[in-house]
Amino acid sequence: MKLTPSMETLIAELVKLPTIGRKSAQRLAFHLLRTRREDALALARAIERMRESVRFCTQCGNIAEAERCAICSDLSRDPSIICVVEEVTDLVAFERPGTFRGLYHVLGGCLSPLHGVTPEKLSIAPLIERLRSGGVREIIIATNPSVDGEATALYLAKLTRPLGVRATRIGMGIPIGSSVEFADEITVQKALEGRREIEG
Amino acid sequence: MKLTPSMETLIAELVKLPTIGRKSAQRLAFHLLRTRREDALALARAIERMRESVRFCTQCGNIAEAERCAICSDLSRDPSIICVVEEVTDLVAFERPGTFRGLYHVLGGCLSPLHGVTPEKLSIAPLIERLRSGGVREIIIATNPSVDGEATALYLAKLTRPLGVRATRIGMGIPIGSSVEFADEITVQKALEGRREIEG
Repeated sequence: MKLTPSMETLIAELVKLPTIGRKSAQRLAFHLLRTRREDALALARAIERMRESVRFCTQCGNIAEAERCAICSDLSRDPSIICVVEEVTDLVAFERPGTFRGLYHVLGGCLSPLHGVTPEKLSIAPLIERLRSGGVREIIIATNPSVDGEATALYLAKLTRPLGVRATRIGMGIPIGSSVEFADEITVQKALEGRREIEG
Repeated sequence: MKLTPSMETLIAELVKLPTIGRKSAQRLAFHLLRTRREDALALARAIERMRESVRFCTQCGNIAEAERCAICSDLSRDPSIICVVEEVTDLVAFERPGTFRGLYHVLGGCLSPLHGVTPEKLSIAPLIERLRSGGVREIIIATNPSVDGEATALYLAKLTRPLGVRATRIGMGIPIGSSVEFADEITVQKALEGRREIEG
């Protein structure tokens, strides 16, 4: 059944969103029809304003609404340590515990020769520039534990070591709350390699 | 971690949608940030236009963009049979097979004295008005097979019979594609009550 033209248009736009199929889109469209007019229009305005306001931090590539993002502008943070991530959403994950006090650098992906992602396609030159301008003692490479993520980590480590910057890789192993029993073989291997002396 | 103000506002609006939690809202917000500007703005505009354009059919309560909905305006449909549903989304379900050629009447819910839903809160008087104006020989009462839905069906049947209109109730039983084994006891009971002679 065809709904009214404007409902069909709305559903077609909603279906373009990730994880939203036709049924979910229809449910959302009917919700937006039934909800208070202000609430529906507030969502529309929030989308428009976000697209007007959000840009990317000129230093680290995080989302920002000014030249520099909230993290780069925070003078209480330690600029001598930079956590290098693939995407802004990874940065969000590292900010969640609230314990990391350094800065970030968003690469915009990881090297993937098969998909045509060469070093020039990523924010690698700006990272090297940041390291060259001094004051950075360590970069923590937090690309994903995938083949491409690992290759990118190695590539970055090789580039940065000659600059006198320590390059470290995030820890890998059994995720907290999960079971050893259900960990895949590569994770178990990484957990063995990443073993540490028990303190205390 | 707080994202930028406009991202946080957008996430707060997305979280108001049904089945969208904080994590999904964040994923959708980042999608709307990364996607082409036209696509994000097309969604915002689709919401606004839908709220401007959609109203309710003055005859049956279906969604419409004119005085009458597409179904009530369709002269090829049979106005002598009316399928009475709780919500527009139920009407959509009955239109899906494409075989019903009658008209509809959307009640806007079902009677529920406990929740303060009395006959005056539903589109029952307009339904009686339609039946009184003549030309209707049957109403198929398609309220949900819940306690309140059943009570509403009985209530409507009592109201409409004196008007010389046949009142029928939709069939209930084992859903197609499901198994008898897994049907709950009330469904099995309804399936027994609704048994039919095998033809052919």
